[in-house]
Amino acid sequence: MTELVLVRHGESTANRDNTYTGWSDVPLTATGIAQAKTAGQQLRAAGIQFDAVHTSVLKRAIVTANLILDEIDQLWLPEYKTWRLNERHYGALRGQNKDATRQIYGKAQVQQWRRSFYTVPPLLAPEDLSHDRRYTEYGQAVEPRGESLKMAYDRIMPYWIDVVAPQLLAGHNQLIVAHGSTLRALIKYLEHISDTGIDGVEVGNGAPIRYRFDDQLNVIDKTEL
Amino acid sequence: MTELVLVRHGESTANRDNTYTGWSDVPLTATGIAQAKTAGQQLRAAGIQFDAVHTSVLKRAIVTANLILDEIDQLWLPEYKTWRLNERHYGALRGQNKDATRQIYGKAQVQQWRRSFYTVPPLLAPEDLSHDRRYTEYGQAVEPRGESLKMAYDRIMPYWIDVVAPQLLAGHNQLIVAHGSTLRALIKYLEHISDTGIDGVEVGNGAPIRYRFDDQLNVIDKTEL
Repeated sequence: MTELVLVRHGESTANRDNTYTGWSDVPLTATGIAQAKTAGQQLRAAGIQFDAVHTSVLKRAIVTANLILDEIDQLWLPEYKTWRLNERHYGALRGQNKDATRQIYGKAQVQQWRRSFYTVPPLLAPEDLSHDRRYTEYGQAVEPRGESLKMAYDRIMPYWIDVVAPQLLAGHNQLIVAHGSTLRALIKYLEHISDTGIDGVEVGNGAPIRYRFDDQLNVIDKTEL
Repeated sequence: MTELVLVRHGESTANRDNTYTGWSDVPLTATGIAQAKTAGQQLRAAGIQFDAVHTSVLKRAIVTANLILDEIDQLWLPEYKTWRLNERHYGALRGQNKDATRQIYGKAQVQQWRRSFYTVPPLLAPEDLSHDRRYTEYGQAVEPRGESLKMAYDRIMPYWIDVVAPQLLAGHNQLIVAHGSTLRALIKYLEHISDTGIDGVEVGNGAPIRYRFDDQLNVIDKTEL
């Protein structure tokens, strides 16, 4: 039975400071490093032999993945890094404190920005795009000015369909280390959760979620390790 | 001008203990971790923007690569791991202390095993092959019972020709983090060093070697950072 494990990165400095992050490339805190190692120990105890690991191009996910691979003694695995697994882009909210935005915009608006499937945050001004070279090789189009969860979902799914799903169908266990919103998008897809139902789904830092599939890639069971 | 940087992994536990290692998957020592970070700081000071990093499937090279990528803030780079960059396989010498082998076999024999281009070490018995799953997906043939430097050279070159050289020719700077003997093989190729001349070439742990090439991939200059 093929297995997929999803892990959200360990606590980042932005998680600690309660700010919106998105595509900002912030590091893990000491707590986040410890959470990543614990996730690795849980996966080692579960005894899963992976065939590949997938992460975003953001260091909080990559470092978490590397710490996990070290703990499970599978550092040699192919490691694929893609902007398609990046966190949802929070637009002009990037870097703002979540409590401060509640005071400015009201709780209902902030709740909608954070949890609704379709709501787009205030966009970055075009001149505020990073033009970081990790994104420019694909043209400017891959760097959004802000994303709803739906927009993030739509750019994640090609990676799932083209890269991850064929590997699972071939019987190769896969590990995905990514971000709160992008994992919520994958969970929505895997569990057929409705656009409104996804509002209530939370993914904790460094908490592995294990799926087992049948040979049609239907979920047989889900375990939170 | 396209650039290539070669880095040998930081000190491993086997380096510290002065034993033959080869394909045994030993970790870095604390000294080795510090050497890897220093190499990263040197590369950061040199200001090189890489487009990809290549390592073996052995953790002492992978961890060194990851520490370097962290220091140069390029963790998002594509990282390719291949058995073709593994250390030369030391056959039945694996795990033996180098001084002890000098006492058993004599200095001249050990010098020949270690530095001659063509001499094959005593082979592993077939039943001592690891059958590690990182090698079995290619069939048993990729796991040698022992290698001369020439044999290691011959399995490295396809990776150079097929993967690294085309990237350099396309103008993409490449970082290779590998092992003493495999880097000696690459240096032999890049600098047109003779089969006997390579005997005297040493590569230090964590010491970056920077090559610049013309558009025909001839070496223009070499700097030890």
